[in-house]
Amino acid sequence: MASDPDDPRIGDISEGEVLRAILARTPAGASTMIGPGDDAALIAAPSGSVVATTDTLVHGPDFRTEWSSGYDLGWKSAAVNLADVAAMGATPTALLVALAVPRETRLSFVAEMADGFRDACEALAPGCAVVGGDLTVSELLMIAVTALGDLGGRRAVTRGGARAGDVVALAGELGVAAAGLQTLFRLFRDGSTPVPVDRGVLDAGQRRGLDRQLRPAPPVGLGATASVGGATAMMDVSDGLAIDAGRMADASGATIDLVGAALDELAFGGDRQRAIGGGEDHGLLAAFPPDGAVPEGFRIIGVVVPRRSDAVLVDGEPIPRAGWDPYRDWDGVVSG
Amino acid sequence: MASDPDDPRIGDISEGEVLRAILARTPAGASTMIGPGDDAALIAAPSGSVVATTDTLVHGPDFRTEWSSGYDLGWKSAAVNLADVAAMGATPTALLVALAVPRETRLSFVAEMADGFRDACEALAPGCAVVGGDLTVSELLMIAVTALGDLGGRRAVTRGGARAGDVVALAGELGVAAAGLQTLFRLFRDGSTPVPVDRGVLDAGQRRGLDRQLRPAPPVGLGATASVGGATAMMDVSDGLAIDAGRMADASGATIDLVGAALDELAFGGDRQRAIGGGEDHGLLAAFPPDGAVPEGFRIIGVVVPRRSDAVLVDGEPIPRAGWDPYRDWDGVVSG
Repeated sequence: MASDPDDPRIGDISEGEVLRAILARTPAGASTMIGPGDDAALIAAPSGSVVATTDTLVHGPDFRTEWSSGYDLGWKSAAVNLADVAAMGATPTALLVALAVPRETRLSFVAEMADGFRDACEALAPGCAVVGGDLTVSELLMIAVTALGDLGGRRAVTRGGARAGDVVALAGELGVAAAGLQTLFRLFRDGSTPVPVDRGVLDAGQRRGLDRQLRPAPPVGLGATASVGGATAMMDVSDGLAIDAGRMADASGATIDLVGAALDELAFGGDRQRAIGGGEDHGLLAAFPPDGAVPEGFRIIGVVVPRRSDAVLVDGEPIPRAGWDPYRDWDGVVSG
Repeated sequence: MASDPDDPRIGDISEGEVLRAILARTPAGASTMIGPGDDAALIAAPSGSVVATTDTLVHGPDFRTEWSSGYDLGWKSAAVNLADVAAMGATPTALLVALAVPRETRLSFVAEMADGFRDACEALAPGCAVVGGDLTVSELLMIAVTALGDLGGRRAVTRGGARAGDVVALAGELGVAAAGLQTLFRLFRDGSTPVPVDRGVLDAGQRRGLDRQLRPAPPVGLGATASVGGATAMMDVSDGLAIDAGRMADASGATIDLVGAALDELAFGGDRQRAIGGGEDHGLLAAFPPDGAVPEGFRIIGVVVPRRSDAVLVDGEPIPRAGWDPYRDWDGVVSG
């Protein structure tokens, strides 16, 4: 790669220079008491507890730079962690970002990533901000984000609180991100090798799927809303509704019976199988007591019933489990 | 690699199986309110704020599996983050661990890593525990740890509070980890390729250096002690005393004048240059007001003086900056 003084390679400048470029793009948040630059950050935790989660994107199994820009990767790695904080009923307060970056990476790529972190926070979780990070040179691009959140004095909403009789509701989309992944696999590979995306060849539906695959938009604010609204259980739908509803059912010692007609109404492109099996939509799946209304933004898609042999049913019938397992699916699809 | 049903490769089993093996080895801590298994963890933050830091170890620049066992890596990645929490004057409460692991890695290697996380917490920061994590398959082994901590109601001790007249004191060692790195580079490489360590050929001093390089033992508990004892500034010495004292001096708008005789007394093997320039000892460097005693465990090594052109002096004289820069030093030494 040619030398470019205006956009140096990460390996040619100091860690301090890279961090300064990132931090110039990520302002402090409402809960930031001490931001980047010291040994550690300090974040307000007014509830006397802190929600914390970490999720990593690794080049290869989780993304390809032929398909995702730096901005996309910053956005997505923030969004998936914000969704996990929301799924506890909490409001995100802070992100810590550990970047491992190949030395030939351009500074502009890392700067765009910082823009993605910032914009995802502003759009999905206003007040949340990057408070710290770490930068390492590496042969492989990896982004490990930790998100923190505050419960606003409420109890955490776990996966295990759903009770027979509760209604099951979803905030967010079903099958959109999976449609985007299908578009990438079908249209933007040369053999098994990813090639850059040409949006010009896509129709509106394909573009929407692609946008959500690359920049998921989980309904982060509805996590706290659901908690205030009495949610008995909640989780982020990241691996597909069938798998994730099964996890909630298992944790709650119950079975979740989904309503086929409701799934069909929500299923992107009318594809119920993809809606149930496809991952990465990062909607919020929640259970609510039977005697109240579900909060605005949630749509009822099923009920909790006493435990059967199957954790998840559709209209009372078993469904095969399906979803995204990075250990199997990626290699199966990309190299197969 | 041959198949072994008792010690499968990570790529041959599910993410859930791997996580269960890790979690069976990492008990809950004193501050764990909700541990691993949900969308996020919940950790007590009694001060109404939370200290948070993240630091990553990447195969290549930060470690080599020829030199470090899984246990060593678990220990070290925990220890370096615990040290950063301590450096704010806080007590560590929780670790989140993001692992990116090649698919051919044995389950036993990851399990040993979990033992290292646990034992480092028990030894260095009792009550702190792994509360969550993430596992991804990757071509490259990477360990990104986030550590959280609580200030016990005290103010955070930053790098920027040292004032002219303060004494400068150190808890921990100087040059031991660097001696260990020298031993690895000098004795356990074939050309530029790392080869497994044979401890049998080492003398007691070399073994001590190696132990500290692979399993650092920062004085984590003394972080809170220093805060209670009135420290005006504090930081973790990770990149070498010259560089890190310079950072404290810069942040404080002052100069730090180190006492050569004190450095010589502390310098491992009597090597002052290595003691000043070598990194990874993870001692705590702190400034204290001139009118009190420094807490037990700290030794006075200098004074804060009004700002000069140099950030750090020894006996009033400038020293060249030296330390560990992963962008330059590793490649310079290992491939050179």
